[in-house]
Amino acid sequence: MLTPLSDRDALDVAGLERLVEHMLAGGVHGLFILGTTGEGPSLSYPLRKELIERTCRLVNGRVPVLVGITDTAFAESVKVARWSADAGADALVAAPPYYLPAGQAELLEYLQHLVPELPLPLFLYNMPALTKVAFDPETVRCAMDEPRIIGLKDSSGNMTYFHRIAALLPHRPDWALLMGPEELLPDAIFAGGHGGVNGGANLFPKLYVQLCAAARAGDMARVRTLHAHVMSVGEQLYRVGRHPSALIKSLKCALSLLGVCDDFMAEPFQRFREPERQRVRQILDGLHPLLRDI
Amino acid sequence: MLTPLSDRDALDVAGLERLVEHMLAGGVHGLFILGTTGEGPSLSYPLRKELIERTCRLVNGRVPVLVGITDTAFAESVKVARWSADAGADALVAAPPYYLPAGQAELLEYLQHLVPELPLPLFLYNMPALTKVAFDPETVRCAMDEPRIIGLKDSSGNMTYFHRIAALLPHRPDWALLMGPEELLPDAIFAGGHGGVNGGANLFPKLYVQLCAAARAGDMARVRTLHAHVMSVGEQLYRVGRHPSALIKSLKCALSLLGVCDDFMAEPFQRFREPERQRVRQILDGLHPLLRDI
Amino acid sequence: MLTPLSDRDALDVAGLERLVEHMLAGGVHGLFILGTTGEGPSLSYPLRKELIERTCRLVNGRVPVLVGITDTAFAESVKVARWSADAGADALVAAPPYYLPAGQAELLEYLQHLVPELPLPLFLYNMPALTKVAFDPETVRCAMDEPRIIGLKDSSGNMTYFHRIAALLPHRPDWALLMGPEELLPDAIFAGGHGGVNGGANLFPKLYVQLCAAARAGDMARVRTLHAHVMSVGEQLYRVGRHPSALIKSLKCALSLLGVCDDFMAEPFQRFREPERQRVRQILDGLHPLLRDI
Amino acid sequence: MLTPLSDRDALDVAGLERLVEHMLAGGVHGLFILGTTGEGPSLSYPLRKELIERTCRLVNGRVPVLVGITDTAFAESVKVARWSADAGADALVAAPPYYLPAGQAELLEYLQHLVPELPLPLFLYNMPALTKVAFDPETVRCAMDEPRIIGLKDSSGNMTYFHRIAALLPHRPDWALLMGPEELLPDAIFAGGHGGVNGGANLFPKLYVQLCAAARAGDMARVRTLHAHVMSVGEQLYRVGRHPSALIKSLKCALSLLGVCDDFMAEPFQRFREPERQRVRQILDGLHPLLRDI
Repeated sequence: MLTPLSDRDALDVAGLERLVEHMLAGGVHGLFILGTTGEGPSLSYPLRKELIERTCRLVNGRVPVLVGITDTAFAESVKVARWSADAGADALVAAPPYYLPAGQAELLEYLQHLVPELPLPLFLYNMPALTKVAFDPETVRCAMDEPRIIGLKDSSGNMTYFHRIAALLPHRPDWALLMGPEELLPDAIFAGGHGGVNGGANLFPKLYVQLCAAARAGDMARVRTLHAHVMSVGEQLYRVGRHPSALIKSLKCALSLLGVCDDFMAEPFQRFREPERQRVRQILDGLHPLLRDI
Repeated sequence: MLTPLSDRDALDVAGLERLVEHMLAGGVHGLFILGTTGEGPSLSYPLRKELIERTCRLVNGRVPVLVGITDTAFAESVKVARWSADAGADALVAAPPYYLPAGQAELLEYLQHLVPELPLPLFLYNMPALTKVAFDPETVRCAMDEPRIIGLKDSSGNMTYFHRIAALLPHRPDWALLMGPEELLPDAIFAGGHGGVNGGANLFPKLYVQLCAAARAGDMARVRTLHAHVMSVGEQLYRVGRHPSALIKSLKCALSLLGVCDDFMAEPFQRFREPERQRVRQILDGLHPLLRDI
Repeated sequence: MLTPLSDRDALDVAGLERLVEHMLAGGVHGLFILGTTGEGPSLSYPLRKELIERTCRLVNGRVPVLVGITDTAFAESVKVARWSADAGADALVAAPPYYLPAGQAELLEYLQHLVPELPLPLFLYNMPALTKVAFDPETVRCAMDEPRIIGLKDSSGNMTYFHRIAALLPHRPDWALLMGPEELLPDAIFAGGHGGVNGGANLFPKLYVQLCAAARAGDMARVRTLHAHVMSVGEQLYRVGRHPSALIKSLKCALSLLGVCDDFMAEPFQRFREPERQRVRQILDGLHPLLRDI
Repeated sequence: MLTPLSDRDALDVAGLERLVEHMLAGGVHGLFILGTTGEGPSLSYPLRKELIERTCRLVNGRVPVLVGITDTAFAESVKVARWSADAGADALVAAPPYYLPAGQAELLEYLQHLVPELPLPLFLYNMPALTKVAFDPETVRCAMDEPRIIGLKDSSGNMTYFHRIAALLPHRPDWALLMGPEELLPDAIFAGGHGGVNGGANLFPKLYVQLCAAARAGDMARVRTLHAHVMSVGEQLYRVGRHPSALIKSLKCALSLLGVCDDFMAEPFQRFREPERQRVRQILDGLHPLLRDI
């Protein structure tokens, strides 16, 4: 879930409420806040606390709330984890500390030190493009021996990696294996994964929910149709900007055009200026008819 | 400067005092705390505050103290900057926010937003291996128009980049251009740079101070001799461990063997175990005669 | 297809015949020689000519033969292409020239210059890990306007890229879109691709042929079973060696143990020594019961 | 040295003669043909043979001629080496085979197999950006035990690597250690290297020869002046195009404007079009006054 902001270090409180309701109305099965798309690492800690508390209050148990605690400082991860438990969140999500990259043995030891400090169960978050280091399948296999680690979100975009993790699931039938990049949502389901944690679901929650359902049902024709729409979102909307931040900017811009929330971005990023905003408007106009009847 | 730790989230206070005195006795011209070698991003904010205050008190104006404020969250950088000013530090050091990489135009705008919030002048810190994005020379050129940005530490290891920045110095004759990787300290001086910010100076401060002086004086024979020692430190000591953290672990281990400070590492890293510690001991035994007469 | 060698610059002629018959007996729908797994770029040109002629004679029209003409020198690509046509091959395969990487506009112009010189239709070969540059989807779209370009083999391992190319297929319904990495064969079929060009089919041709058939038929249970075997081949066999050459060495070693062909490797690679050979033997012993009834 | 071409697979014979004389008149101490800047891997083998023969005849012993034999196919490297010896060349230059990257043990074994087949002594060519694999210092140390390997050209741009190789020179006082990137020519000399193999010496041979001489003489003021000119060439001329081929295109374009040789490029590259040519002309006009009095 995006983090609606109204200014530097200021939550767009009304926008947050509308965004939560928009996503829940679209049928999402959970919310992951303070992840990459949620600009988690860019937010001050007081703001993170406020977001956790408000989101949990708004959701009020309708779906699970997962909170990102990825941090370079161990103590700060634990602090955010405690806020999450106090606010009533359901689980935590942690990628590797992302400044100086650790080796696999160190990563595993890190998890073994972290989990006992956490008041809630933990999802691993594999995001090597941004953390420089992946959770290797051998490390994931060892992490499965820790019962309070309950799943993994893979944002590597590497389907071979995803297959390798899926091949480990018999060791932990209770695990949830989730796909980050939305273009690979059906691939993930076919490979034995359980769902997606997809940025596009902020904007078009039904599209991703129904694509997931179609893939689970093995309805290949409907998968093709819905996946083509997902590809269009990626090929059009996320290409308005350059840089890895383009996805967040595009989604915030589109949601702002739809009146859901403000498109303010946390530093060092800036919202789209008017020319990009115009292009987003045109793209939305083109996508809406396609997505109306989903 | 390394951050001596005695336990998770606990400063080695006596070790910090000995380390500061060891480095000042070796003649260093300044101290940079909370950088990469100082495990800055791995430390909790309260610990960072304590380190800043204690270091400034210990140094007590004998040399300038520079404080790293690199962060993914703007507000947290500003918070650490204010603590630094309150404690009497002399300058701040910022690398690009290091989670989601920004484009160059965004980096420049980030600096333009950051500098007015800072109570002290700022050094840029170019560290692309860890921040994923460099300050391009064009961006540095623009940053030179901001009078409160007063220098750059380049840890890219890319001498062509260093030459390109050096070629911009006529625009800001007051700037300090400093070299990160210690193997390139004489190269930096010959290229028009002003000095080094070298991890090895925690252990052998005189070696780096005198190498810098020899290079400035154009004493090529002495540069060759001292540089060969610096290469030995790198080839032997920093190769005890693997991973980018090996440099920090080796230095902490060596300083612990010398009785200067504890070798506890912040998560997700761990101090060397006994076999590596034995090798560090042997290497130190081999290096000491070489370095005795410097 | 692997290139069986008996010595430096010497074809294992009897091994080649056995390998071709082994693969055809396994039901493969075509043979691609002089690709990456075929050590194409490592072979002298006279050896490449001999391989093309012998393979075409052995196959004798039973399946199409595709010949890799990837080269850094334009004239050498054309030379190999002519040998291929003279020998009766069916199509050519070209990755980008792989020394100094070209830009996309240059790649497209290169294709536009190359195709008219070729006596046979051409497949593109996307292999960015080895050629440093991919055929971007926009470039592939333009290449589709050239009727003598008839398909693409994607060895990027990037399923999002594969989906993007699959989305272009309506422009050329006659194109064949093929998957390189064998772990992604079912994903490729589900994504609208047509098949695989998989190294493992040298050893276990039936496994890959039947996995492809199961995926086309939408028989998900059988896909799961067969894909698990493919993952086992990758997790066990291809991990005997290190380096990107491990796949070729493992396959050659296994085929040598089965009496199909020699495991000599072209420079700068060397066949497995006895310890690795023992491990390959054990792995084969473990895999054979699984694969017996496919 | 660039390879002047008049058309696809056709040498610009008159241009080659003028280029050789231009460079020798500028005082270069040797010529390296069929390297990266010489588009070696892009040329057909007959053309390579012709270039070797013509260059050796033109030079006629006035300076040593070094010939690049880098190839993915062992037998082709040996073939070019024999042509070189027959034509009277002085030494050979080989980078690692550049398609499938080899491990360090394999690289060393490759050299041990290659050297006995070569009729001339060999320089190693470290060019990891294009060959994907470097000659690690440990591998270079072992290669020094082979008396017919007589030096190394480092085009990594990594001065720490260069220092590490320089530290090995006491094992082979007869070795020549040469720098590829021209911006690092003085750094190389100060680090104990012997000279440069710099593309810019095709255009301004005197500039590089004199910069090398000034650095050897320790004349720092003159080094600063000349190095600033070298930086200007890089910052202006080589930035006219994009892509790694820009250096070659710019140099060929400039030499064509000066009437030295044609600017035809081997596939997949194309000479600059008119707008870039205009910019090169302007840059040359700006550089000439600076370089007149060198």
